[in-house]
Amino acid sequence: MDDASPPPGHGFDTGGPTLQEIGEAELLRRLTAVARRHGDDDRLVVPSGDDAAVWRPPGGAGIVISQDAIVEGEDFLRSWIDPEAVGRRALAVALSDLAAMGARPALCLVTLCASGTSRVDDLLAIQEGIGAAASQAGCRVAGGDVSAIAGPLVIDVVVVGTVDPGRALRRDRGRPGDLLVVTGCLGGAAAGLRLLLDGRREPVPAPGGHRHGAVGHGQGLQGRAHPPAEDDAAAEAEERWLGRQLRPRARLAEGQALVRLGVACAGDLSDGLIVDVGRITDASGCAAEIWLESVPAEPGIHTLLGEAWVDAALGGGEDFELVAAVAAERLDGLLARWPGGLAPLHVVGRLTPGSGLRLLDRRDGQEVPLPPVASRHFRQP
Amino acid sequence: MDDASPPPGHGFDTGGPTLQEIGEAELLRRLTAVARRHGDDDRLVVPSGDDAAVWRPPGGAGIVISQDAIVEGEDFLRSWIDPEAVGRRALAVALSDLAAMGARPALCLVTLCASGTSRVDDLLAIQEGIGAAASQAGCRVAGGDVSAIAGPLVIDVVVVGTVDPGRALRRDRGRPGDLLVVTGCLGGAAAGLRLLLDGRREPVPAPGGHRHGAVGHGQGLQGRAHPPAEDDAAAEAEERWLGRQLRPRARLAEGQALVRLGVACAGDLSDGLIVDVGRITDASGCAAEIWLESVPAEPGIHTLLGEAWVDAALGGGEDFELVAAVAAERLDGLLARWPGGLAPLHVVGRLTPGSGLRLLDRRDGQEVPLPPVASRHFRQP
Repeated sequence: MDDASPPPGHGFDTGGPTLQEIGEAELLRRLTAVARRHGDDDRLVVPSGDDAAVWRPPGGAGIVISQDAIVEGEDFLRSWIDPEAVGRRALAVALSDLAAMGARPALCLVTLCASGTSRVDDLLAIQEGIGAAASQAGCRVAGGDVSAIAGPLVIDVVVVGTVDPGRALRRDRGRPGDLLVVTGCLGGAAAGLRLLLDGRREPVPAPGGHRHGAVGHGQGLQGRAHPPAEDDAAAEAEERWLGRQLRPRARLAEGQALVRLGVACAGDLSDGLIVDVGRITDASGCAAEIWLESVPAEPGIHTLLGEAWVDAALGGGEDFELVAAVAAERLDGLLARWPGGLAPLHVVGRLTPGSGLRLLDRRDGQEVPLPPVASRHFRQP
Repeated sequence: MDDASPPPGHGFDTGGPTLQEIGEAELLRRLTAVARRHGDDDRLVVPSGDDAAVWRPPGGAGIVISQDAIVEGEDFLRSWIDPEAVGRRALAVALSDLAAMGARPALCLVTLCASGTSRVDDLLAIQEGIGAAASQAGCRVAGGDVSAIAGPLVIDVVVVGTVDPGRALRRDRGRPGDLLVVTGCLGGAAAGLRLLLDGRREPVPAPGGHRHGAVGHGQGLQGRAHPPAEDDAAAEAEERWLGRQLRPRARLAEGQALVRLGVACAGDLSDGLIVDVGRITDASGCAAEIWLESVPAEPGIHTLLGEAWVDAALGGGEDFELVAAVAAERLDGLLARWPGGLAPLHVVGRLTPGSGLRLLDRRDGQEVPLPPVASRHFRQP
């Protein structure tokens, strides 16, 4: 046997499709299938494949655990954001999965992979950002790992929380007839990403922490200049969209309120309404329709994006809002009892029998083509 | 304010030392200090800075959690190992931290960062390896994340286990006078690494799973040819060292036995006896001496490495054995009750008052210079 030519099946890169050929969603499906074969255990109340796993330790309550990585060059660029904000963002992205289960955060751990030429102060600032955001969420930093890498910065965050195992919000608890309800507004993060890709950077905080929006606002809008009278409002909107992209907040209180008010099915909007509702219908074994005229778009994105606001609001992702499926007869009670301080609820569609997802405009009764899904991972170059 | 030149303190790369200037140990110390400021909570029984964190959830038993990343180019090369074995190795490395706490594994989660041109089958094989090794350890795969990366493969594993919180093995429970005891033999992984760096690859499994050691054995030994009569024994030894490097096993049963037999202080040997005993002395506020003549070297590494066997056994790391500190008067009882099927215990030194670490050869009463520490992360190029 020749040492230099290993037999088929041995070693890396021996053939088969690449990740960019099958895409992130299909990769996740296949990995989850493998994980579930190795995850069978009645203590694992919610196994691999939901926003987070729920585990019932011996003699204990429900433990929710999730892991989320952000990678330089894929999820952020150094020119967009400072290290402390990257840390905050990494934690918020991970906490969003706990929010989607209705859990209370308890712990986090962080792996940082960085090249040897990275600045120590940058990594400490990332850790500070994670710690500060963790404290705000009632979550303790419990450890992690560091590793060298000849490549981009990787921040991989694990979050652990608690939930009543029988009441965790699950993707597989939707039923045909349930109404689809989202928290907050959609498309802001995608609009912010568009501004960043067009060359806008995050406004630098002025002394005292007040942010002013006057740093080159509007310059990235590719021909969409604002009349002078609208400048202030436009700058304010842009700052809000940048904030949605760079400084997301996990909807923890909203997830806990959904549990408290008896909702059983929800997920977070990390990849956009189309993809994340698709995860609910796949897990619940049903179909869905989304009502275009009911989608709560982030205010002002029509001005920036024109018709493409639909792509941002439905396919853009990273808004980290929640989407829940609510039995129709319970909707009025949910809306009536929804706490005033939380992100408002909006009905955006419903689950139906069958499979697949349709986008309808009920103003004219037409079916609308689904917008492209803007997954930023494993794109074709 | 000029958009192109952010003020000091804002943004990445604004100055200060780099990681390769301060090294991994100092980075970990600084990150842990930040983490501990954000980790204060009496439910966090063992906070950041030990092999793993121990958390007591409301109404529950002790949960142990740890996170460990392996990175292509730093921890393995694709030419060394097949993807399934990389998965097994990633899990073993993480489980070693649970072993070092005396915990029982329950769950694992895995983040995979891979480039878009990676082969899907390779990632699935990694996940299979993780799953198979998890099943052997009584551990369920509960989820994880995938991300694109324009860089090397990253496999970041989280492991969760259970332990009686008051009886977890901790680094900070050593006392001057305690004897230092290790499981198994040391230096095998470093010898295996040396073979790999010299161009040896893992022997290809023959049909039926039997490994034959005849694939180019000895060719990487740089002038240390074996007489023909010793070839078989040498090939077998090399295969064992490659196994220590590529297919490590976490000493889970040994850690649980240490807890059962009343030992309070231990850590794993991920970075070598010098570094890992140093972590125990730092956490326990004492010094240590290591007795060179008592160190249980992996059989045969003297032949491969000559005088450098000391560097491999004390500074090489990645043996994933355990080191415990045992009160002198309890040693005989521990050795007498140590279960026969487990890796044997060897006394290698003792904790002393003061600080720092000394290497002694008690055959001639001389102090021996400490060998260099072979941390593979954040090396100067």
